[in-house]
Amino acid sequence: MTDSTDSAVRPVNLADAFASFEETWSPRLAAELNGQAVKLAKMEDAFVWHGHPDADELFLVVEGSVTLELRGEADVTLDAGELAVVPRGVEHRPVSEAGANVLLFEPSGTENTGDAADGEMTADVRDL
Amino acid sequence: MTDSTDSAVRPVNLADAFASFEETWSPRLAAELNGQAVKLAKMEDAFVWHGHPDADELFLVVEGSVTLELRGEADVTLDAGELAVVPRGVEHRPVSEAGANVLLFEPSGTENTGDAADGEMTADVRDL
Repeated sequence: MTDSTDSAVRPVNLADAFASFEETWSPRLAAELNGQAVKLAKMEDAFVWHGHPDADELFLVVEGSVTLELRGEADVTLDAGELAVVPRGVEHRPVSEAGANVLLFEPSGTENTGDAADGEMTADVRDL
Repeated sequence: MTDSTDSAVRPVNLADAFASFEETWSPRLAAELNGQAVKLAKMEDAFVWHGHPDADELFLVVEGSVTLELRGEADVTLDAGELAVVPRGVEHRPVSEAGANVLLFEPSGTENTGDAADGEMTADVRDL
């Protein structure tokens, strides 16, 4: 990786970035572009059921495995190197028994718990 | 990977997707969300210098290595597992001597050659 602290283009090494924090379900901001955010999240056990009325959400599994439970549809399991988009409005619950490192693409400002009534797991996005 | 042909959520396996085509500098559409496109491109040798006046462009190297030559700035080299955003308006030229598989994230409709006068390498985005 090039050291480019002074450049307009700043590389992010995903392995280093995921190694820099421990908290699960607490996304870190890796980059922003075109009003969208690239977030990195560690997932383990089950999240809350929620949807995002105005935001499609992309999950790209970098390490481990995540099952996307989908309301009224078959689960979709993503292993490392697999991605999928959960369309806006589709209620979902990510679950990872063994843990996973996941890259998310979604509009900047999207809350992790979306429209879930239970806000216990709502987390602000933090910088890397 | 779950078989979910009938689901609203369709997984894409990156290794399978990159194995499904050979052409370099000819992006394939992996997903669309929020007016943005996730494209997969094979890169080898040098592309043309160009910028995108209205589009930030994310490069995530899945395999191999790509050097982003940047007008007036130091080159930035991305190895597998590294990403960077080239902000709108920043002239750049991706170069990969040994070849690379790259995931791009940018607004739907962004042309690969941007504002380059030489359109020889302009390629429509094709479906996977």
